[in-house]
Amino acid sequence: MIKGFNYIGEEISAKGDTVYSTFNPKTNKETGWQFHEATKEEIDGAVRLAADAFKTYKDFSGKRKAEFLRAIAAEIEALGDVLIDAYTQESGLPEGRAKGERGRTMGQLRVFATLLEEGSWVEATIDTAIPDREPLPKADIRKMLFPIGPIVVFGASNFPLAFSTAGGDTASALAAGCPVIVKSHPLHAGTGELVAAAITTAARKTEMPKGVFSNLNSRGIEVGKQLVMHPKVKGVGFTGSINGGMALYKLAAERTEPIPVFAEMGSINPVVALPSALEENGAEWASKYAGSIMLGAGQFCTNPGLILGIKGSSLDDFITTLGIEISKLEPTCMLHPNIHDNYEKGKKEIAGQKGVRVVSENGASVAPNHGRQKVLTVDGANFLKNPKLHQEVFGPFSMVVQCENAQELTQVLNALEGQLTGTLLGNTSDLEKYDEVVDALKGRVGRMIFNGVPTGVEVCPSMHHGGPFPATTDSRFTSVGESAIKRWVRPISFQGWPQELLPDALKDENPLRIMRNVNGTHSNQEI
Amino acid sequence: MIKGFNYIGEEISAKGDTVYSTFNPKTNKETGWQFHEATKEEIDGAVRLAADAFKTYKDFSGKRKAEFLRAIAAEIEALGDVLIDAYTQESGLPEGRAKGERGRTMGQLRVFATLLEEGSWVEATIDTAIPDREPLPKADIRKMLFPIGPIVVFGASNFPLAFSTAGGDTASALAAGCPVIVKSHPLHAGTGELVAAAITTAARKTEMPKGVFSNLNSRGIEVGKQLVMHPKVKGVGFTGSINGGMALYKLAAERTEPIPVFAEMGSINPVVALPSALEENGAEWASKYAGSIMLGAGQFCTNPGLILGIKGSSLDDFITTLGIEISKLEPTCMLHPNIHDNYEKGKKEIAGQKGVRVVSENGASVAPNHGRQKVLTVDGANFLKNPKLHQEVFGPFSMVVQCENAQELTQVLNALEGQLTGTLLGNTSDLEKYDEVVDALKGRVGRMIFNGVPTGVEVCPSMHHGGPFPATTDSRFTSVGESAIKRWVRPISFQGWPQELLPDALKDENPLRIMRNVNGTHSNQEI
Repeated sequence: MIKGFNYIGEEISAKGDTVYSTFNPKTNKETGWQFHEATKEEIDGAVRLAADAFKTYKDFSGKRKAEFLRAIAAEIEALGDVLIDAYTQESGLPEGRAKGERGRTMGQLRVFATLLEEGSWVEATIDTAIPDREPLPKADIRKMLFPIGPIVVFGASNFPLAFSTAGGDTASALAAGCPVIVKSHPLHAGTGELVAAAITTAARKTEMPKGVFSNLNSRGIEVGKQLVMHPKVKGVGFTGSINGGMALYKLAAERTEPIPVFAEMGSINPVVALPSALEENGAEWASKYAGSIMLGAGQFCTNPGLILGIKGSSLDDFITTLGIEISKLEPTCMLHPNIHDNYEKGKKEIAGQKGVRVVSENGASVAPNHGRQKVLTVDGANFLKNPKLHQEVFGPFSMVVQCENAQELTQVLNALEGQLTGTLLGNTSDLEKYDEVVDALKGRVGRMIFNGVPTGVEVCPSMHHGGPFPATTDSRFTSVGESAIKRWVRPISFQGWPQELLPDALKDENPLRIMRNVNGTHSNQEI
Repeated sequence: MIKGFNYIGEEISAKGDTVYSTFNPKTNKETGWQFHEATKEEIDGAVRLAADAFKTYKDFSGKRKAEFLRAIAAEIEALGDVLIDAYTQESGLPEGRAKGERGRTMGQLRVFATLLEEGSWVEATIDTAIPDREPLPKADIRKMLFPIGPIVVFGASNFPLAFSTAGGDTASALAAGCPVIVKSHPLHAGTGELVAAAITTAARKTEMPKGVFSNLNSRGIEVGKQLVMHPKVKGVGFTGSINGGMALYKLAAERTEPIPVFAEMGSINPVVALPSALEENGAEWASKYAGSIMLGAGQFCTNPGLILGIKGSSLDDFITTLGIEISKLEPTCMLHPNIHDNYEKGKKEIAGQKGVRVVSENGASVAPNHGRQKVLTVDGANFLKNPKLHQEVFGPFSMVVQCENAQELTQVLNALEGQLTGTLLGNTSDLEKYDEVVDALKGRVGRMIFNGVPTGVEVCPSMHHGGPFPATTDSRFTSVGESAIKRWVRPISFQGWPQELLPDALKDENPLRIMRNVNGTHSNQEI
């Protein structure tokens, strides 16, 4: 079923001569599937079709867009084991993970379908006229959110399903009413093609306009660049490296018409382990964190790469136990030899820094591309002096920073760049003593976790998967959860607009029965 | 009372040797007030104080911040005629306008105070735990908005009060919990100083942290540049020219840590006059539009600079009447000789373009710096061929584009850049025939007005004063109305966080009695 085609609107296309294969990191061999890199003509064709599709798709009812999203989920499910097989071959990740991620992907699509069916997400806000106001009458004004246009989504290496072809960016953009052009991730182009075929089938079955979705293959950076620079593209979603994300961000800012780039670029996710937590449950936390560091071969953007504690016997014990617990776990296969090589290099570079000591290191001979865990430690003073130690090492790696006291720990937090998450292990009475630590953490992160692990990102209205730069390029928006839809919309106000020509969401009779802000009060009633 | 000082925290400061004066365009002479350009040291001092103030100000209750905003309004009022005198001298605008704008400015501050006192603006979103969920338990997650840090506000030339020192940007940023550093507009530095003194007094009386507000003088671009590049600055509000706004936007994107720049950069605000409107009320619209074009010497960002109609006798009549009506009005003084000169140049440049004809032109000898009205006309084909005709001419100017038919009119709209507003004059049955015209307008603007004028921007929850690029750098946000506060905040999620340490807005008992999203349902009750 994998043919290496691009999907442009509802058509398959393979006009380019540049061809590349995907790689199975477990067998350490190419998969044999050959993919045709998208040509300039194909890129332009996909964007033009998307812009055409936008003309009608933007006005589709929530119900109709929801049908499309539900159909996509159903078609992905219908791919069955073919998809699971491609996923495991192209990622080296186990079948359980593949199935879990497929479930999450379908779940995300249905979450947005439910959001659309309910309908209140458009933030309908109505101020009715006051004709006799002095000195001037007040006009009737009504505002709601509208989609911005074609969106380019870059597939992420580490989530071939949930953050790729039909992942959260695609689902939220399609939900908003924006056509999507996916720049397929080269590591799992086959998985992407299967999902693209499923989306295309769903689009056809639910009679979506041609061009509402396209999927373009590309091994290098040129296709992505051309997409971001295309004048008809109005927004970009990206999950990946800082270098990649910032290149796209700067490119977009230099366009004649700058467009928003939502890049989620990684994080070392500081965990503050307060003395009380370690005294009471040190061994338990050591075991839980060993698992969290190893999850998915450490290839999660919320991987706990930095653990901060205050010097003392409870921290010593925690470090020792963490070392023992993590050494008991079996290394698993990483996504690609290049990612594995970068991991080995990253570990080595950090380990060679001044004052850094090894807590636990797997030096065994393992199967190809398997990520051997490593935990290091350093004291606060050395950490503060060396920005290299702030770098993310993408893999099953973490570093424990031993601080002299709460003040130094606060200094370390204040020295950190923006992060997706920050975790606090402690008990409540403890927290009150560490006001400044909590405050410093809050200033640096998008999600604060208490007595838990940062890995595992719930899809729900209260989720914020984002954070200050460089965790993301825009700390005000999330890429996970219902609020992700807000990235692809803008408000439009209607002043004195006739009832019969207003969108349904803004009509007096409230035919959609949605929750609205009417003259400052929340209401789902008619006016 | 005007001494030419910078206000840094609660201190006055004049360390710089560079001195400049403001200008009275009515008398065509300098005001005599001398202003000290802020030095590097003063800039750095203001930003550092703001960052220090942020540490406590960010956590102030809505009630306390509201007291501050209300105190600012009271102190501005207490300035009395001194402020009105400085305003009229430095702007050339009449006393009535000065008083009206002062009222609007105080009104805006109080709108944000009311928003803070009510409290629901933080978008509190709560998903309670489901400990027995399969296959994994769901944690308790709660999200709300928090301020991002010190904000730089650039005063606008055309609104010395409502979009300057204590204007909408400042009011919304202070309301959000962000300290503000104003880069005072050089045309009305004295007005700015008076307002800065009022804010400083209000800050002292309500015991705000030192540095919550600063006001820096600057004639050139260096002070603004340094402010935008300062690592402790986290956001920028700007109203002004495209060149100025884009320079700041690009500068901010090149920072090590990019920050958002909300620049509102002008607009020609297309007005579509459909045949039915002109047949039924052509003369009335001509008279209303003559007034709208002349309002404030045409120096409004929502000035109707472009009127589109379909060729025919009703459009001919409208054009003739508009010319007659506007010729009856008296020119008024513009803000500054440079603005007046630019206006004269702009008019001349557009008038010299191919196919452009004069409808009405005031060629009389007038008092210095008075803006002489001009209305031009051109046909759709020539307009489509010449992007120069899309340029804003800042002043009492408008151009009527005569289109062959609805199709050409749609083409013209589609060829336009992003705009703050778009207006439709017509009757309802007419509108249904012009589906594509309405749709094209919607794709280009932030606010759609039916049978009205674009000048006059209501401050209310449903207002969107923004629009696609280049009307603004970020079409998702407004600079007028309650929603303007959303520019200066970011969400933070709390996962499994102990009740006693949650912000009040997220506590089970809902002590602030605000409206929240609890498990998908809106509620102002406790949990």
